[in-house]
Amino acid sequence: METFSHVPPGFRFHPTDEELVDYYLRKKVTSRRIDLDVIKDVDLYKIEPWDLQELCRIGTEEQNEWYFFSHKDKKYPTGTRTNRATAAGFWKATGRDKAIYSKHDLIGMRKTLVFYKGRAPNGQKSDWIMHEYRLETDENGTPQARI
Amino acid sequence: METFSHVPPGFRFHPTDEELVDYYLRKKVTSRRIDLDVIKDVDLYKIEPWDLQELCRIGTEEQNEWYFFSHKDKKYPTGTRTNRATAAGFWKATGRDKAIYSKHDLIGMRKTLVFYKGRAPNGQKSDWIMHEYRLETDENGTPQARI
Repeated sequence: METFSHVPPGFRFHPTDEELVDYYLRKKVTSRRIDLDVIKDVDLYKIEPWDLQELCRIGTEEQNEWYFFSHKDKKYPTGTRTNRATAAGFWKATGRDKAIYSKHDLIGMRKTLVFYKGRAPNGQKSDWIMHEYRLETDENGTPQARI
Repeated sequence: METFSHVPPGFRFHPTDEELVDYYLRKKVTSRRIDLDVIKDVDLYKIEPWDLQELCRIGTEEQNEWYFFSHKDKKYPTGTRTNRATAAGFWKATGRDKAIYSKHDLIGMRKTLVFYKGRAPNGQKSDWIMHEYRLETDENGTPQARI
């Protein structure tokens, strides 16, 4: 098994939820080698969603989804809203978390968040959506998110 | 640049016509190394379309398109119908060839063929479609086809 340095021509990164959790996130959390370093590390709370496009580019393909790893902010461990803020706005959870299965085993959860410009509770809802993945088997696991 | 032995998780092979011609077919014809050996060599006249699914499988993903390289049969260089026959049927061209461009340069052509079961002119039309690619810059180039 080699580590890849680039994406071979003709390939598009369209991972399933199961691949994201069971391969990429699990390897990341356990610091094991990932075949192709296709998911970048970012500090989600220091960048705005529109800056992710450049940071998380994969090859030359047109993208409307971007993938990244980000450490969950530990400053306010009991809150959810306050520690998801960026300079320009904040991420707010919406709907219910979705369970992710591998065959019949629950392996992770997917949370959906929407980006609001401004400050809560007066933010302006945007079209930016984030899916935040977490391992179900490791409570302290690093979350992985995609927009 | 290394040669890859497998597809990294999360990647799907959805090449554009330009990538098929300008990268895969051009490398194949000139015997240059291809990053990932994802397109198999087959003898199109010895296998039926429904046998390609197993031969041309890429990783574990669900596929409804299969990619392969095949030498054009040279037995009847002036005919088109007779030298596209398999044991169970034959491939018949349909419609007009499509020009494939890289930026503004014509780099190849794409022919569309339909598989008929039986023998011409009494074959029974099937749902199997093949796109046969050829380099426009090399008249004797190896054709590449996808179904």
